[in-house]
Amino acid sequence: MTPFTDQTDDQIIHIGEVRLIEKITKWMEPISPPPPFGIGDDCAVMDSGDVGTLLTTVDALIWNEHFDDTFTPEEAGAKLVKRNLSDIAAMGGAPAGAVIALTMADNVSISWLERFYAGICQAAMQHYFLIVGGDVTRGGAKDFFGAHLTLLGSAPRAIRRQGGQKAGDFILVTGELGGTRHGKEKTFTPRLREGEWFGQQNVVKAMIDVTDGIAKDLPALLPEGTCAHLNVPKLPISDAAKQFAAKSGKTPLEHALCDGEDYELLVILDSEVDPELMIGEWQQKHDAPLSLIGRIAEAADGQNRALLDAATGEIIQCTAFEHFQR
Amino acid sequence: MTPFTDQTDDQIIHIGEVRLIEKITKWMEPISPPPPFGIGDDCAVMDSGDVGTLLTTVDALIWNEHFDDTFTPEEAGAKLVKRNLSDIAAMGGAPAGAVIALTMADNVSISWLERFYAGICQAAMQHYFLIVGGDVTRGGAKDFFGAHLTLLGSAPRAIRRQGGQKAGDFILVTGELGGTRHGKEKTFTPRLREGEWFGQQNVVKAMIDVTDGIAKDLPALLPEGTCAHLNVPKLPISDAAKQFAAKSGKTPLEHALCDGEDYELLVILDSEVDPELMIGEWQQKHDAPLSLIGRIAEAADGQNRALLDAATGEIIQCTAFEHFQR
Repeated sequence: MTPFTDQTDDQIIHIGEVRLIEKITKWMEPISPPPPFGIGDDCAVMDSGDVGTLLTTVDALIWNEHFDDTFTPEEAGAKLVKRNLSDIAAMGGAPAGAVIALTMADNVSISWLERFYAGICQAAMQHYFLIVGGDVTRGGAKDFFGAHLTLLGSAPRAIRRQGGQKAGDFILVTGELGGTRHGKEKTFTPRLREGEWFGQQNVVKAMIDVTDGIAKDLPALLPEGTCAHLNVPKLPISDAAKQFAAKSGKTPLEHALCDGEDYELLVILDSEVDPELMIGEWQQKHDAPLSLIGRIAEAADGQNRALLDAATGEIIQCTAFEHFQR
Repeated sequence: MTPFTDQTDDQIIHIGEVRLIEKITKWMEPISPPPPFGIGDDCAVMDSGDVGTLLTTVDALIWNEHFDDTFTPEEAGAKLVKRNLSDIAAMGGAPAGAVIALTMADNVSISWLERFYAGICQAAMQHYFLIVGGDVTRGGAKDFFGAHLTLLGSAPRAIRRQGGQKAGDFILVTGELGGTRHGKEKTFTPRLREGEWFGQQNVVKAMIDVTDGIAKDLPALLPEGTCAHLNVPKLPISDAAKQFAAKSGKTPLEHALCDGEDYELLVILDSEVDPELMIGEWQQKHDAPLSLIGRIAEAADGQNRALLDAATGEIIQCTAFEHFQR
């Protein structure tokens, strides 16, 4: 389903900005706080009494880039929210409030938009945060729809991408990798509970969510002069990736490392700790698997921030997702 | 100047996302904090120890909607920042940090973008806040450029649009109205210092910035069942509006009330206070004029939230700017 319509009385241009914002306000009622904290002022107002460290993240959902006509409007709305929640999870934080900005061509469908907001509401209710404000603007010629959600959250201890990790530290990952081609980008649950749990473990030094594929995201966790030794047989490759590989001509490993949008957490654990003990504790609290997939190591020449197969010592090559690349 | 280029080696598609983000990070160096507070993690991290009330606002700058080829790239970047700063000013707040999200077609020019960021940097340095993160995404067909800035700030006392104002309260406005057609949208300084000053005056009940014209923005300050009695001769109409009216066929009053983008502050003052005393104190602190332009009054039938000429009792009609309206 596309966000656009030729039926003029269902086009946003038909009702004008004031009535459109009235409608949006109504659609968001379940997740929008009453005044003075809700929509309808120059800025959104939040009480910041006890947030600890303040986290801010912004992510986009653009037609034909982040969703297409295989998405229901509800799935598109939920994806916008969940992409951002995954970033909060990757810092060990909890979400608090968000603002939504829409950029829309005149022919965006009002009924599509209502269902898009229903998806946003459901995801926000599920993860306990409020929409506190936003912006609506016209933009693009025909058939343009873009949404940006800026999500604020907080963390008692924010886990960063660089947290003093070094050669010897362990690399772990939650869940399974490479399921995107089978629709994981529509169905995933952001790892908020898991991220908060990692935040409570002082032996967790660094964390990132896997959005572009481990091949691109793991190097962001490797300090200058190090590389990753991956225990390839231990990589949690999803059945979906194996099935897809049968058709795609690529290997399941390539799908697991290079497909984007897994939204799993990649975690660096202090080398002083027994990772199996930690995995044992994890299993008592969480349903998703947690896999020890490798270690950080000193990089030889030409190996800086590379991913190596620990068994063969060879560099694993593949191309992760990148915007703006011919 | 347009954001787009046919010269392939100046197009963002030519360098890819990773190098583009490297460039942007470099361009923003003067206003981007070093790690762990700067760009390059899943979320931006801010210390929220003593922010008081947290303010959040998001505004867009879309090609052909909010700027056109009469803008230099620096003016476009500055406008994105200043639109948001004006919202913070309208709450009596001070800015703290921002995230920027760009949505760009492949043919956006790298050299245009560098100058756009120079405009952002200059405006951010002038108003003392940092860019702490962002997002870059591809979007739109040819010739699309959109930027969203989400600005966080804080206020000791956030002045809202509705703050218990009632019939009898005074209506004041800063600066002059109706200068947009002569380029005020490019040259205005957001009224941050003035907004903070109003925040310190407990007799100021409500405030808004004039972005769509007083005809549309003042009603947002009128409680249900009231109207505004305007002292029309006291309206601070800019010379620019008078000159433009000579050509436009409209009256200077229409330009002053109905043109958008004045970015002045519209303020409601408690009826218990002598407004001339307050204006006297204002003049000792600020260069811009502050004008008493009317009072809130009980609305008769058909006058709810209307603007009336206090001398004649007639409703002042005009159409303020509205998006998505044929």
